[in-house]
Amino acid sequence: MTRALLLDGRSAAAQVHERLRRRLAERVRRGLRPPVLGIVWASEDEATAAYIRAKRRAAARLGVEVRVRRLGSQAPAAEVAAAVRGLSADRNVDGVLVQSPLPRHVDFEDIVQLIDPAKDVDGFHPLNAGRLFRGRPALVPCTAAGILELLRHHGIDPAGRRAVVVGRSNLVGRPTALLLEQHHATVTVCHSRTRDLAEVTRQAEILVVAAGRPWLIGPEMVRPGAVVVDVGIHRTEAGLLGDVHPDVAGVAGALSPVPGGVGPMTVAMLLQNLVDAAERRAAEAVDATWAR
Amino acid sequence: MTRALLLDGRSAAAQVHERLRRRLAERVRRGLRPPVLGIVWASEDEATAAYIRAKRRAAARLGVEVRVRRLGSQAPAAEVAAAVRGLSADRNVDGVLVQSPLPRHVDFEDIVQLIDPAKDVDGFHPLNAGRLFRGRPALVPCTAAGILELLRHHGIDPAGRRAVVVGRSNLVGRPTALLLEQHHATVTVCHSRTRDLAEVTRQAEILVVAAGRPWLIGPEMVRPGAVVVDVGIHRTEAGLLGDVHPDVAGVAGALSPVPGGVGPMTVAMLLQNLVDAAERRAAEAVDATWAR
Repeated sequence: MTRALLLDGRSAAAQVHERLRRRLAERVRRGLRPPVLGIVWASEDEATAAYIRAKRRAAARLGVEVRVRRLGSQAPAAEVAAAVRGLSADRNVDGVLVQSPLPRHVDFEDIVQLIDPAKDVDGFHPLNAGRLFRGRPALVPCTAAGILELLRHHGIDPAGRRAVVVGRSNLVGRPTALLLEQHHATVTVCHSRTRDLAEVTRQAEILVVAAGRPWLIGPEMVRPGAVVVDVGIHRTEAGLLGDVHPDVAGVAGALSPVPGGVGPMTVAMLLQNLVDAAERRAAEAVDATWAR
Repeated sequence: MTRALLLDGRSAAAQVHERLRRRLAERVRRGLRPPVLGIVWASEDEATAAYIRAKRRAAARLGVEVRVRRLGSQAPAAEVAAAVRGLSADRNVDGVLVQSPLPRHVDFEDIVQLIDPAKDVDGFHPLNAGRLFRGRPALVPCTAAGILELLRHHGIDPAGRRAVVVGRSNLVGRPTALLLEQHHATVTVCHSRTRDLAEVTRQAEILVVAAGRPWLIGPEMVRPGAVVVDVGIHRTEAGLLGDVHPDVAGVAGALSPVPGGVGPMTVAMLLQNLVDAAERRAAEAVDATWAR
């Protein structure tokens, strides 16, 4: 049985980081300070703590400063809102993200609308979502952008291909489908109400699985030779599992591993969004000077 | 050969108008003025003039006032922008739309961003697009909303069905696909880069065609019994043609006619958006009073 090509997120992410390093060095030459990322964190679980550590580590390697507003899982909505407003208004902060999950009594969408869209490095503000939807320049959700970059890094062009996205979250499924369509794939979005999921997934030349269900996709659901991107990550007693069963490697033409596939791309694209946001703000500050 | 059920846009639109009439009567009882729609019109062609007349007629039947800012096809971008800003800022205007086409030298997306999102009755502002994309309350593009209402009127529930949308415009294709997905269909978007279009369209239980190409879809491209919605409208020497060939009526289970299908729905949903926008503004004015 031949094995699928490994869609190596670590090497693709390293390439993104290398490009960012050059852009940041250019900033220093122009006398600009390093970008600053602000994070609002209002939960206590260990998985979230690990995500924050990963973001801090990756930022530190690029010389990017991270300021965390730690509020705890009991923080009232007004306190979360105030933290987001404060970072958004701070001229010395270039990017703002709200780490999910928020406390149960706080509505994520309400909070996200308080982020300055120009600093919205997760691409969650409806103004960025709408710009993306209408094909305008926008800050794009990191995992979706990372999946496209992972494909590009491995020379896979979605144009003209049948693509299937399993999952329709605002975080991953919907923006990934939109990006694949904008790269000229013919895209189908599947979800919990899809009848005969296997019939649909077997049509995919590119299959992105972001369903949040361990081993949802078995080898019998995959078209031979397909490119399969596994966005799932589930901590179980048996170790880290994806949404895609490992046996899919015997059918697919290419497969992203868990871990080491989409995960590193998400952090890389977050930092790319941060540098983009910082440079756009610097450019607008220059424009404003000129306009005087 | 049995003939497809006619998806009658005129009767569905009449029902929408009747609901609006009741809501507007309720406004009068509460002592509120009728809603006012502002239109910025900067073109000279007869087709656009006909659209404007249709909107005026439908509005007049409901007692809705329409104010048209007619600028002509040579208007500079600044003049178009000023007209949009003026209507957006006018407290006595509840809805604002920019009639396409604009002059060639004016970017439609740039202008649309100047509309107050709360008055954006075409649902084209990126903030409304983003709210729709993220599943939040939004003003929804009229043709997309009209297609869903046309299906609902005829008792067709998209949930769990395979739906295919041909065309990916911001105006129709993309928002229609999103609405169908939010109504739990499994949706595929096709476009000019789709390979073997017929293979995809034959999978559709609900097929929406908004490709802008006369008679693109022939009977051999339609699954027997499918629901087919034809968004195309082309004025030719042979009369008005849709994107769907008339012979599809012999294969489909249901088919929207051209004219008399989607067209009347678009105008009805525009007026519904206007009444929604007016009521939301009135409610917010009350909230603001209370907050004092």
